[in-house]
Amino acid sequence: MNFINNNGFSNGSHLPSRQECVEIWRSADAVCFDVDSTVIADEGLDQLACFCGKAEEVKKLTVQAMQGGMEFGDALKSRLNLIRPSLETVQRFIKASPPKLTKDIEKLVAALQARDVDVYLVSGGFRSLIAPVAKLLNIPLENIFANRLKFFYDGEYAGFDEAQLTSRSGGKAEVISWLKRREGYSRLVMIGDGATDMEACPPADAFIGFGGNIVRESVRKEATWFVYNFPTLIDELHRED
Amino acid sequence: MNFINNNGFSNGSHLPSRQECVEIWRSADAVCFDVDSTVIADEGLDQLACFCGKAEEVKKLTVQAMQGGMEFGDALKSRLNLIRPSLETVQRFIKASPPKLTKDIEKLVAALQARDVDVYLVSGGFRSLIAPVAKLLNIPLENIFANRLKFFYDGEYAGFDEAQLTSRSGGKAEVISWLKRREGYSRLVMIGDGATDMEACPPADAFIGFGGNIVRESVRKEATWFVYNFPTLIDELHRED
Ligand SMILES: [Mg+2]
Ligand SMILES: [Mg+2]
Repeated sequence: MNFINNNGFSNGSHLPSRQECVEIWRSADAVCFDVDSTVIADEGLDQLACFCGKAEEVKKLTVQAMQGGMEFGDALKSRLNLIRPSLETVQRFIKASPPKLTKDIEKLVAALQARDVDVYLVSGGFRSLIAPVAKLLNIPLENIFANRLKFFYDGEYAGFDEAQLTSRSGGKAEVISWLKRREGYSRLVMIGDGATDMEACPPADAFIGFGGNIVRESVRKEATWFVYNFPTLIDELHRED
Repeated sequence: MNFINNNGFSNGSHLPSRQECVEIWRSADAVCFDVDSTVIADEGLDQLACFCGKAEEVKKLTVQAMQGGMEFGDALKSRLNLIRPSLETVQRFIKASPPKLTKDIEKLVAALQARDVDVYLVSGGFRSLIAPVAKLLNIPLENIFANRLKFFYDGEYAGFDEAQLTSRSGGKAEVISWLKRREGYSRLVMIGDGATDMEACPPADAFIGFGGNIVRESVRKEATWFVYNFPTLIDELHRED
């Protein structure tokens, strides 16, 4: 989902210049990837809604939430209340819907890890849907920051963990601040397709807009570095000069 | 657990007399049973704590909570936070610990149901632990009012449903008010060992203290009708005069 950028910047002036961005990327100590429409080709929650026969209703609500400037957590809650996925539904969905990785993401993650760059997945989506993505990419599960569905003993939907930073507007920025404090990163790069990803810079030291699955106009215009595929980023890592 | 009676009554003056109690019992349209130490011989949460090797710590906290007059929900939360039972733990516990029904409870429930009296289980314990009890007694699962544990997708403990009436002080009384409104009962009897059971009368039309597993002194003293076994109650149902 692409929420309105609320940080008051109307252009990319808060972002490092393209040249600075490239420099930080080449010497990054950590990279945080958005997941939906970045690491994977689609939006997990929309796919789950579709699996539950609620695609249209959820889409309508998503549009309403974006137009109404609804808080991220409230928008998430109202959409989940439409789906109310049981544990068994989520298990069946995961089995039936292996992640569609974006082309070349495996190579990019492997290239970063080969350089000892810590790689994280930071998502407003759900940990249970992202864990299979992390496994495919050899990203440790503890490097996932995402929301968590809850279930009752009988498997009935029981809400989501509202204590997770990622369940709130500005949550990705909070995760990144926390990571920088805890790990002492000074060259942390956020990569994503959406406004909430761009808003996480700062505290991220650089932001790279990604348009390989969908191009969000506001992000394409404001991001100082916007790429359409991952090989562009791999090549920058390996460029010698 | 036996919390302090906070309703301001220092004696049984709010309860119908023993004679009234017996009359209401004989013509009851609904009976609500407490579960722990009433329908079953022990306390579910203590048993679960024991299964998880936390019996001593939880016992200590229970005593503290009772002495400090802690709100029921807060006391529940702090004890569960010590145990933090996973879905798998609860599943193993239920398998390893079939309910120990109090002697003659099956006969009592069957006698009530044979007279078309609606039977409910109203408990500050957990639905997942009480469902096997209900099954043994042929009580429909929708007649259980109890708390609900929550789990994350991977089975990790995720809290309990704080929206359930039974998760709060005075919750049993609220359940009974709600039942009376919804079903139109006018002769609803609450049976239990604890102060929270006695506090639910009113709105319950009568309260019967039960001392077959443990005798709570305050309840024994204040209850206008206090019994030590269920055949006493069965006999009253069948007495003809
Ligand atoms: Mg995205
Ligand atoms: Mg009890």
